[in-house]
Amino acid sequence: MEERAFKHVVPMQIRFNDVDKFGHVNNTIYFQYYDTAKTEYIFDVCPDIDWTKVAIIVVHIEADFVAQIVGQARIACRTRVEKIGHKSFTLRQEVFDVDSGEVKCICHSVMLAFDLTTHSTMLLPEEWVESICRYEGVDLREKA
Amino acid sequence: MEERAFKHVVPMQIRFNDVDKFGHVNNTIYFQYYDTAKTEYIFDVCPDIDWTKVAIIVVHIEADFVAQIVGQARIACRTRVEKIGHKSFTLRQEVFDVDSGEVKCICHSVMLAFDLTTHSTMLLPEEWVESICRYEGVDLREKA
Amino acid sequence: MEERAFKHVVPMQIRFNDVDKFGHVNNTIYFQYYDTAKTEYIFDVCPDIDWTKVAIIVVHIEADFVAQIVGQARIACRTRVEKIGHKSFTLRQEVFDVDSGEVKCICHSVMLAFDLTTHSTMLLPEEWVESICRYEGVDLREKA
Amino acid sequence: MEERAFKHVVPMQIRFNDVDKFGHVNNTIYFQYYDTAKTEYIFDVCPDIDWTKVAIIVVHIEADFVAQIVGQARIACRTRVEKIGHKSFTLRQEVFDVDSGEVKCICHSVMLAFDLTTHSTMLLPEEWVESICRYEGVDLREKA
Repeated sequence: MEERAFKHVVPMQIRFNDVDKFGHVNNTIYFQYYDTAKTEYIFDVCPDIDWTKVAIIVVHIEADFVAQIVGQARIACRTRVEKIGHKSFTLRQEVFDVDSGEVKCICHSVMLAFDLTTHSTMLLPEEWVESICRYEGVDLREKA
Repeated sequence: MEERAFKHVVPMQIRFNDVDKFGHVNNTIYFQYYDTAKTEYIFDVCPDIDWTKVAIIVVHIEADFVAQIVGQARIACRTRVEKIGHKSFTLRQEVFDVDSGEVKCICHSVMLAFDLTTHSTMLLPEEWVESICRYEGVDLREKA
Repeated sequence: MEERAFKHVVPMQIRFNDVDKFGHVNNTIYFQYYDTAKTEYIFDVCPDIDWTKVAIIVVHIEADFVAQIVGQARIACRTRVEKIGHKSFTLRQEVFDVDSGEVKCICHSVMLAFDLTTHSTMLLPEEWVESICRYEGVDLREKA
Repeated sequence: MEERAFKHVVPMQIRFNDVDKFGHVNNTIYFQYYDTAKTEYIFDVCPDIDWTKVAIIVVHIEADFVAQIVGQARIACRTRVEKIGHKSFTLRQEVFDVDSGEVKCICHSVMLAFDLTTHSTMLLPEEWVESICRYEGVDLREKA
């Protein structure tokens, strides 16, 4: 599954104060990149979600920092869904250098659907699951 | 009026990534300090505001950066209201070094009361004005 | 001078966590936008500065918040130099909505050249002054 | 080992703009808390490191978000070293509510010693290992 291409890529704008005193993008900033790309992915792939009724919250994040990023680099973040469970789905995201292609950091996050009306977790709506599988071009549902 | 003491002082915790590649706290971070101290001031001095109905928004900010702050410094932010108009009030805030007493940055901000129900500006409730003047120990209303 | 067009415009990427609990971009984030656009301006207009020897530091910032920005807006920041003194220059920057053209926030900042070797302020190198005036298409030097 | 108490606890100051539009501390901000507490841990436990020669960089981060944090909460971050390898060590950190004791988020990070002179990874100096084990009160070296 690792070989599957990423269809969703968002260029990331590095801000002056993303860079810490070591002269590279601070590790905490990568999560702002992932968060921003993740939000765009959901908006692009599942545009019809009513955000006044449901939220998608992160319950687990795991990141491998492969190489540093300097302030003048041109970077982007690519995102794809890896697998879909009953109540959650897992994203794989990679921040990479646009010029060299070098992968800078790899992140997996587990996202949970949350019902804002009942304040509890909920089953992923079938409509979202279908939108994601259609977009990714593969059936990502976990087998029972 | 400049001589009046500040009654409201909040220690500020410097975060690792507040410091930019020049090795000092980035200028944009000072506004996070001011915002945080300002919020505490309002909560402390006007505790009965119903935040579901009104908001206090910033319309003007002016800051003088006097001296830099290094990551290991111990700093605090002091806040006082300078003057109160019909719909707005002006805050003076200073970030200073707790050990040396040195003032690092001085900020003035003009805050506006905003009615979330009608989505328009509103007169400052007399109750807030009185709470602020009582706390500051001086009548800060601008004369007509 | 207000009528002079801005030649330098940088699209700004809004991050998910730029938006605070009021649902709009937090006031402190605008200064990250200004900082980022300012850095690009200097790199574009004065590309030959040796940053190991000199720094450009902000000593005064003044911002007027005209209208709020929601998370889905498409915005940009335009920057121009307003005037050039002996040791400092003043920038005017505007964050605006790319689609409606509406100005969201206007900022003036006074920037100072700083000699990293002697740790003191310095005269603005004539080379920078000429680069800026050539780029802006007007002589911005303050008359004595 | 899970039962071992945390000796290192740092209160965390929540900033106004830590809270996102969902009204809780944004997930990316937790990593700023972890980074800040981690820096204090190293300064407290290994005070004699010469930071012009070595750096400690994060290569892996893993976080479980257990419960949300609202802006008015009083929180702290506790940190301990879990295990020490030849070139890296693993931290466990927990952000928790000071009043209720509730754990909000658990983080593990793998930190690597980096020689700034040779620009390569290095063995953890025996002096650091001893300082950490003495502070934690237990031998944390991984057995071969």
